[in-house]
Amino acid sequence: MRRRNAFYAQAGGVTAVLNASAAALIEACRETDGRIGKVFAGRAGILGALREELIDTSLESESTLAALRHTPGGAFGSARFRLGEFDDERSRYERIAAVFAAHDIGYFFYNGGNGSADTTLKLSKLPELLGEPLVCVHVPKTIDNDLPETDCSPGFGSAAKYLAVSLREAGADVASMASTSTRVFILEAMGRHAGWMVAAMGLAVDDHGDPPHLLLFAEVPFEETRFLERVRECVAHHGYCVVGVSEGLRYPSGEFVSQVGEALPGRNAQLGGVAPWLAQLVHNRLNLKCHWATADYLQRSARHIASAVDLHHAEAVARSAVALALEGRTGVMPTIVRTSDSPYAWETGCADLRSVATLEKRLPREFIAADRFHITEAARAYLLPLIQGEAYPPFRDGLPVHARLTGALAPKTLPAADDLVESVALGKKT
Amino acid sequence: MRRRNAFYAQAGGVTAVLNASAAALIEACRETDGRIGKVFAGRAGILGALREELIDTSLESESTLAALRHTPGGAFGSARFRLGEFDDERSRYERIAAVFAAHDIGYFFYNGGNGSADTTLKLSKLPELLGEPLVCVHVPKTIDNDLPETDCSPGFGSAAKYLAVSLREAGADVASMASTSTRVFILEAMGRHAGWMVAAMGLAVDDHGDPPHLLLFAEVPFEETRFLERVRECVAHHGYCVVGVSEGLRYPSGEFVSQVGEALPGRNAQLGGVAPWLAQLVHNRLNLKCHWATADYLQRSARHIASAVDLHHAEAVARSAVALALEGRTGVMPTIVRTSDSPYAWETGCADLRSVATLEKRLPREFIAADRFHITEAARAYLLPLIQGEAYPPFRDGLPVHARLTGALAPKTLPAADDLVESVALGKKT
Repeated sequence: MRRRNAFYAQAGGVTAVLNASAAALIEACRETDGRIGKVFAGRAGILGALREELIDTSLESESTLAALRHTPGGAFGSARFRLGEFDDERSRYERIAAVFAAHDIGYFFYNGGNGSADTTLKLSKLPELLGEPLVCVHVPKTIDNDLPETDCSPGFGSAAKYLAVSLREAGADVASMASTSTRVFILEAMGRHAGWMVAAMGLAVDDHGDPPHLLLFAEVPFEETRFLERVRECVAHHGYCVVGVSEGLRYPSGEFVSQVGEALPGRNAQLGGVAPWLAQLVHNRLNLKCHWATADYLQRSARHIASAVDLHHAEAVARSAVALALEGRTGVMPTIVRTSDSPYAWETGCADLRSVATLEKRLPREFIAADRFHITEAARAYLLPLIQGEAYPPFRDGLPVHARLTGALAPKTLPAADDLVESVALGKKT
Repeated sequence: MRRRNAFYAQAGGVTAVLNASAAALIEACRETDGRIGKVFAGRAGILGALREELIDTSLESESTLAALRHTPGGAFGSARFRLGEFDDERSRYERIAAVFAAHDIGYFFYNGGNGSADTTLKLSKLPELLGEPLVCVHVPKTIDNDLPETDCSPGFGSAAKYLAVSLREAGADVASMASTSTRVFILEAMGRHAGWMVAAMGLAVDDHGDPPHLLLFAEVPFEETRFLERVRECVAHHGYCVVGVSEGLRYPSGEFVSQVGEALPGRNAQLGGVAPWLAQLVHNRLNLKCHWATADYLQRSARHIASAVDLHHAEAVARSAVALALEGRTGVMPTIVRTSDSPYAWETGCADLRSVATLEKRLPREFIAADRFHITEAARAYLLPLIQGEAYPPFRDGLPVHARLTGALAPKTLPAADDLVESVALGKKT
């Protein structure tokens, strides 16, 4: 097979270990003895392909790549943008094909969640639709852990570790002051539709009675009276109550308990703020002093407390993606396959993107306790291996060191096509 | 001097390194060759003295004490309770004197902030008022860094490090997605009256243009129009804007920008929620997508990313307190004395509590930039040494290990005096 270049792009919400996947993928391409040429990274994700803004990663030093391994965020820019159907957006597909042809790109790697798996699947049809040869491999990533086919999604383990660690620490704080101060503490986690991250907080329990005492999952309809009764009982019994809640908590009617602003057409509603809302409820109805925290982006960027297992997963799926691409496998995604819970053992596998794209893996029923306010032992057995090990970044002057890319673009060879991306700001969430 | 026992109590808001002070103090007492006998720790702080609930720390193993060094919160319980004037609350002072006499307590160590410095000063008058000999030493602690006389307050450095690290990480997140998603991110820090913690976020800047772009200090009256104009400019220039804000942000009128609930008599208003309020403002007025985080207790309990310098300070003031007590110094507080900025060097000193009690050290004017939206080089020179070094706790099963005290109480010898503490729930904030 003749040597061709690769295009790599980051998509959707970033994670603490997304750039570790990027670094591993670029390194793996460099190690193919020239079977893969340059790796171009899309500036701002797939938009980099539409705009012909291709960061030439061959100009980045090995030390910069190594530093990516401990840099949170998406170093090349990550976009929330979803390609529509081929028949509706033919000009965009043609543009991407033209840009790829102009830069001799034969491999497309897309590092994202459900939405970008769908985009990868669509682009894998380019050869049959436009006659352009292209091998398309999706590299899994999402803190939401809702990708099907893979045992877990890289990015989740680190967010899970951050939340479990933070919950345990804040729990110790509240426990020490409850007799004269705050009685109820509420920590809000991201997760619009699936309660994986709230479930992770449950790992903070080491002994009976430890925080968190109540978990409110996105999957369990919120019953106000029952919740307040449990808070009251918990404070009476333990002296305090620590609650973990998903931003995606809904009423039995299906409405989100807290929704910030109105949903724009083609966009999901921006959530956030369920914790202060619950705190107000507890204060008003139970007359208990209540504090709350909303970690928001801190939970998905906390590289300083990343899970070593998660970091290994992020690197492994990237290396596996390159191996699959070299075998000519297209429309696929490398997966994490668990072979044992304890001791934890895993290997990489491969899934067809038709079993992945746009599908969401919910928290299984057997992971939610009978009273629906905590996790089960089965959930612990699943979750605990994913937060093992502390992959500390290097620090300088007391702060974590992040990579600074040169970000130099490959020279443009095609006329601009701004009309194809001008509506991006209203593109669908990836 | 005959051997007498010591009483130690924790007061007010806890920190990531408060228990390290406790451990160092107890260890230092154990090392006095019997000049100090047992160390009793007040259960729930000074309330332990009023209730005669004295945790006998001699029953805690050396390994438990060592584990305290990496346990956040207040392991013995920390109370928000302030003793009134002697003439107004004579019965409480008499009760404390009686409890101390019953347990042969000759040394009183109070580990807290401004309010507890005042309590320590008041108790140092017990010998002249009631004829009971007692040496009283205050051990400084507060994340607010507002204690006078000491260069810094143990607990602040770790909260500062947490905030600077989190800001840098979340800043990388926002930078990578701003072109199609969130443009403005707001991180809220604690600090009712002083903007020390917001100032610490300023350390995250490594190069020109790095986040945070705007800091809103408790000391600088909030001007809505000017703030929005700066956010708009910043987004136009950098593509995004990261803001750090103090929970104590006030309008020029002096009112808090966001105040949760009404202030109860004798209590400070419970703050929190200025970040979501600002986010709404930015969204409504500038039509920019905005995210926000409120770290709340996470910032004062994040032992996993504690500053090594802060930890050393916390241990040093505790050991110094014991040394001062053995010299018979009463009504004093050990301090941190900075002898050099770069390389950072420090030693312990001693301050008279009359220069400390109830006084608050504000952020100096020369630490706030001319435009009042950032810190100065002088502030950096002051702050940077305080966040140096990562004092990681041990982890087990992916989570930090915390001490579990037996918490056994010394046998009670006096009749109960519940009436003296029943109004505690409305006691003043310490």
